Formats: sequence, structure tokens, C-alpha cells
Amino acid sequence: MISEKMKKLSAGKSAIRAMFEDGKKLAAQYGAENVYDFSLGNPNVPAPQAVRDAIVEIATSEDSVYLHGYMSNSGYETVRQTVANFLNKEHGTSFSVENILMTVGAAGGLNVILKTLINPGDEVLTFAPYFAEYGNYVINYDGVLVAVSPNTETFQPNLVEFEQKITAKTKAVIVNTPNNPTGVIYSEETIQAIAAILEKKQAEFGTSIYLISDEPYRELAFDGIKVPYLTKYYRNTVVCYSWSKSLSLPGERIGYLVLPSEMDDAQEIIDAASIANRVSGFVNAPSLMQLVVARCIEEKTDIAVYDRNREKLYGMLQELGFECIKPEGAFYMFVKSPVADEKEFVAKAKELRLLLVPGSSFACPGYVRIAYCVAYDTIVRSEPSFRELAAFYGLTK
Amino acid sequence: MISEKMKKLSAGKSAIRAMFEDGKKLAAQYGAENVYDFSLGNPNVPAPQAVRDAIVEIATSEDSVYLHGYMSNSGYETVRQTVANFLNKEHGTSFSVENILMTVGAAGGLNVILKTLINPGDEVLTFAPYFAEYGNYVINYDGVLVAVSPNTETFQPNLVEFEQKITAKTKAVIVNTPNNPTGVIYSEETIQAIAAILEKKQAEFGTSIYLISDEPYRELAFDGIKVPYLTKYYRNTVVCYSWSKSLSLPGERIGYLVLPSEMDDAQEIIDAASIANRVSGFVNAPSLMQLVVARCIEEKTDIAVYDRNREKLYGMLQELGFECIKPEGAFYMFVKSPVADEKEFVAKAKELRLLLVPGSSFACPGYVRIAYCVAYDTIVRSEPSFRELAAFYGLTK
Repeated sequence: MISEKMKKLSAGKSAIRAMFEDGKKLAAQYGAENVYDFSLGNPNVPAPQAVRDAIVEIATSEDSVYLHGYMSNSGYETVRQTVANFLNKEHGTSFSVENILMTVGAAGGLNVILKTLINPGDEVLTFAPYFAEYGNYVINYDGVLVAVSPNTETFQPNLVEFEQKITAKTKAVIVNTPNNPTGVIYSEETIQAIAAILEKKQAEFGTSIYLISDEPYRELAFDGIKVPYLTKYYRNTVVCYSWSKSLSLPGERIGYLVLPSEMDDAQEIIDAASIANRVSGFVNAPSLMQLVVARCIEEKTDIAVYDRNREKLYGMLQELGFECIKPEGAFYMFVKSPVADEKEFVAKAKELRLLLVPGSSFACPGYVRIAYCVAYDTIVRSEPSFRELAAFYGLTK
Repeated sequence: MISEKMKKLSAGKSAIRAMFEDGKKLAAQYGAENVYDFSLGNPNVPAPQAVRDAIVEIATSEDSVYLHGYMSNSGYETVRQTVANFLNKEHGTSFSVENILMTVGAAGGLNVILKTLINPGDEVLTFAPYFAEYGNYVINYDGVLVAVSPNTETFQPNLVEFEQKITAKTKAVIVNTPNNPTGVIYSEETIQAIAAILEKKQAEFGTSIYLISDEPYRELAFDGIKVPYLTKYYRNTVVCYSWSKSLSLPGERIGYLVLPSEMDDAQEIIDAASIANRVSGFVNAPSLMQLVVARCIEEKTDIAVYDRNREKLYGMLQELGFECIKPEGAFYMFVKSPVADEKEFVAKAKELRLLLVPGSSFACPGYVRIAYCVAYDTIVRSEPSFRELAAFYGLTK
């Protein structure tokens, strides 16, 4: 009885559900503390105290009808102004209130901009490995997701293939830096190269190609690495932001789109995106949380926690003989499977109570993703299991 | 550059935007207190104090990672159980946790169930006058909204035409009771008649037809009228609920779907709806607000405020010679335009600083909607303007 689109999606669901069910069974069998769940990108760092304070202060001081009522579909003007000011201060941009559209998280933002831009058959490019939901989001609007194959040496984008895959039907390109699942950050040179290719192809085809920067991990960059702000390198850039990771608020569904005035047909896109936010059923970003993030705009999550996890896990996996590039950002490590079929590796890991996600889920088989947004202690205690896993595959030196 | 679908939607936008801009101009010219804005369904009754208390208590006592983190795409199990228990107690139903899917408001819920069910070309029936967004939501999934024409005597559904318009392609029927924009409540007999027609047509065509009950106004029923709970009358019923009006939380985007186990292909639909919630970009209903509404499940808005407004406005309009049925629920009055083209009437009203919404926006020209979720004083002070309007059209007796 369900729609054809949902039938396809439901068929793909069983693997994830099975893993979830298996995890629950393992926890029941061995005790939850003996199951090392590295499968989910759910931040383990609490939201800053300032978030709690802001919720309490706003809830007790603001007028209820204002606080919980409808506002413009684009969000409270004061909140959008605060976001614009913050971005301008941080990045030397010059956004104003009309360039900011508050969204139901980055997932909401991506859907809004794709609905705004994509006609059936339009192509959206992205770089493998990529967050599997991109495919689902593009299909929502009957677009076609085209993946550029991964450069497994560095996991930096494969720019030669990127240029080859751009066609007259390419309407948008999604980039995600710091990257899920690899932890890679695109350098300024990479961004400049992507921009140059897009400029060239726009001129060649006489089209506009929008660069959608999905950046929920922007603040999760280690070793002082700066993540370039993409609107400064390419005019037709849309930024899709979320506080899910930066303030540990994934359940609250709060983020924004930046729709720069320099874009081709900027006003048309800005107006349409606000309507898309409404008609998609989001209506507006949750009102209390809009006011909370505005008040906490200068707050940062404690990335030292993730950095410590990163160093520990990376050191451990290196020592055990696993192959992996050291992540520069986000809280994921993308590890080479010792066997070609990484699902076999994932299954073996599960026997040892290690829950990992197969790279196939990111269009990059032969690898697994380890989400290290977990308690440090979980990493420490998982060591014997990883050691046994390494030994099983004959990796240990 | 925007998509064809958004071009159509953007073209339709100008009228509403123009009204909004005109309202602002009027406020600047005459003072906001001299503009009587009856255009928006934004509750003027504050959320109950218990909502504020719950926000503060939950924010200060719950673990941050639990409170703001990801949960199942269907929502917190405890919240879903609380909703199921509440419905079972109120309506004698027997829902359990898997029958409840927490959503980003009713708009989110409607989109989730339509995405779950609708294939391109499928027909969705509804009764005029209806909330214009239904059309936009159905188009999101390339469905076709088919409207049953209004019975302008009673604004009860036209059941003869309803039966005629059901075809083999009819996949769903949306009903909205208490109704926006008429304030009408469907009686138990009406619900039984709708159910009987649907059963008959399902048998005739060998199809399943899902009845989607959009009921954000359920608790806003006056004079002690009971609003029948539709799952008890028809097996293939999906309920779409929101706390936007019942707890005055429209900006927070919090509601739920009821997906009864008795439905045809219930398990398939339940599983698919959870995926639809995720891939549409909602991911999950906002987490803090889920916990808040669960704690406030027994709370009610102060409907006496709306009732007082209803009596005052209805009495006033009657006295002035306007034609209108007395609303039984919600906070809208649907008034007959004294001239066939109600947009002319709306324009004249605007000259007198009365902001009304043309019935054409609800697929029912010749009428206007007055949203009386405003301060009582606004109604009182609007009287001279309504009087002048009535005099202009020669209505005053």
C-alpha cells in the first residue's frame, strides 16, 4: 500500500534496523557496558551550560505568544540578524537578515534548498564517500545524485573526475567539510580548485551550478586547522548549517541556510526557499530553540573531548595495524577493512561487540566508519576487542 | 533558476505577501492598535503555565545528551507511550507505542503520511472550504487534490458529491474537524456516513482508502460538543495531531501521527512513515518539546477566551446584518461576502483597517475568513469599522 518511493527506501532499511536489533541483543547478552557502539553520530559532549541557562531564562522571561508563536517562515528577524552578524564577524562576509533562513536542522535546510532548485532529472554531484541521506534527499525531488569516486589515498576530492562528471544537467554540488565519514577537511586550495572548475563549467554550459556546503562539523576542526568559508570562494554557494554537533543539539532540529545575495537569481531563490520551508511541512525552525541558539551564538562545544578520543583511537588502531588516515575534523574515523567485503569485517567486529558502520552506507565499500563521539572510557575498554579483531585478520605487527 | 514546482508556488505567493505588506503600511499610517488583524491563526492565548514549568524543570534536571540528543526517528518511546495512554483513556482506544509517531507539527505529520502513501497521480479528496496547504502538500508527492464542493448552507460535507468523486485512484481523504475556516464540527452521524461510503467504495474498487484526520483544533470545541475520534468509526484512519492550538505552541512544531494497527498494511505503513519522517528532513520531532508536551498531556488551553471572542464577534456581525453560521469549534468565522467577488470585499475591509482572508484561499470564493484568536479588545474596537463596512454594503437593518 505504501508508495513506490517508500518501498525502495523501506527495502534498504532492514540492514540498519538489523544492526540496531543486534546491538540491543548484544547489550542484553553481555551487558551494555561491554558493547562498544561506534555506530552513531550522536555527540556525547553535553550542550554547554549556557544552553541550559538560555532555555530557562528565555522560557521564564519571554512573552509566551512571542516565544511559542508563529513568526515569518524564514525565522525570527532578530535571530537571523544575530546569525548574519556572527558570520560577518567570523568570516568577513557581509550577510544581512534576508540572507539567513532558519531551518529544521541541516537535513531540513538541505531539503529546502534542493526543493527550491531541483527539477526532475536534474543532477546533483557529490564526492564519495558521502552521507547516504544525500541520495534520499535528492530523490525527494526526483533529482539524480551523481557520485564522484573516492580518492582512497587522501580522501580529498577527486577533481579530475569531478570536472568530467559535470554536465549541462548539473544543478548543484554538495560538499561536506569537515567530512562525514572520513574526517577530512578540504584545504583552501581544494576549495579554490572546485570553484574554478565550477566557474569554467558554468561558462561552458551557460548554466548556474550551486555549491551546497553542508557543514554541521565546521567547528569540529582539530590542530587549529581553519575551515574555509565557501561563499568567499564561489558566488553561487549556499551554506547549510546545523547546531547539532557544534552545540550538541541534534534532537532539537535547529540550523540555517545562508543564501547569499551574490548568487544568480538570489532574490527568487531566497523567496522560494522560504515558501519551500513552509510547504515542505517544516513551516519554521522551532521557535524557542531559535532564540536559544541566537543567545548562544558565541558558545562552542568542548572539542578537546573529541580530540582526546581521536588521538587515543587513532594511536590504538595504528598500533594494531589498521590502515586509516588521521581525521582532521568531525568525530569519525574511516578505516580500511582488512578484507574486500567490509560487511564481513563489520560482522566479525560485531561478534567482538564492536558496532561499526560499513563504508557501503557511504558509497565507499572496503572501509568502515567509527564514530568516536563516545565516552573516552568506551574507547579504552574496546581495546581488547579491536586487538582480537586485528589478530583475527593477521594485522598485529 | 528555481524549480518549476517552486515557480508555481512563488507566483501564488504575491497576494499573501501583498496583504502582509499592506498590513504593515496600515499599521505605520494609523497605528498598530487601529489595525484589526483577523488574518492569522496564531493563538493569542498564552501557553499554560505548566508548559513554562515543564521547560524549566526538564532543562534543569534531564541529562543533556538524552534531552537534546537523537532518539528513534519516531520519537522518544516514553513520550509515544504517554500519548498512547492518554488517547486510550480519553477515547477508549487501544493504541500502543508503535502506533504513535512524533512529528514536526501537523504540517510535518501530513507530509509524512502523504509521502508514505501517495504515488504520482494518486488522488486525495478533501472538502471545500479547506486549508490551502493541503494542495501544496499533495503536490509535493505529485498527487492530485480533488475537492468536494462546499455545502454553503451548513458547511457540513457534501456526501453525495463525495461518493461520486471517489475513484479507483483515490488513495486518501483529508478531513479537518473542527474545521478551518468554517468552525464546523462533523457530527457522529456525518463521520459514520463518511465511513460507510469509504467502506463501500473500498469494496467496489478493491482498494484501501485512508482517511486522514487533521485535527489541530480537536480541543477547541464549544458548548460541550464532543468531537468524535475517527479511528473508532473507520479502520483505515490516520490521525494527524498538533499541540499548536491546544497548548498555543505553533512556533515549536510539535505533533504526532496515530497509525492504528487495524489499518490495511499497518506494519508496512508504520515502518515507512518513520523512514519518511527521516528522509523528508524532519529526522525527528524537536526533542525538548517532545518531553514538554508529554509532561503537559493533561493540560488544556483556556478555550473560554476564544468562546467569549466567538460570542462577541458573532453577535456583532449578526446585528450588523452579515451572514454567517455560528462556529462550533476552532477560532475562525466564515462570513458571506455581500458581493460575489469577496476580494473586493476584502479590499474594502482593508480600507477600514480590517484584515480578512478571502475564501478563495480556501477554495470557497464568496466568503471571507475571520480569525478571532485575537485580544477581546481588538474585536470590541473593530466594531465601528465593521459597522461602516456593513453600511457601505447596505446590510445594516
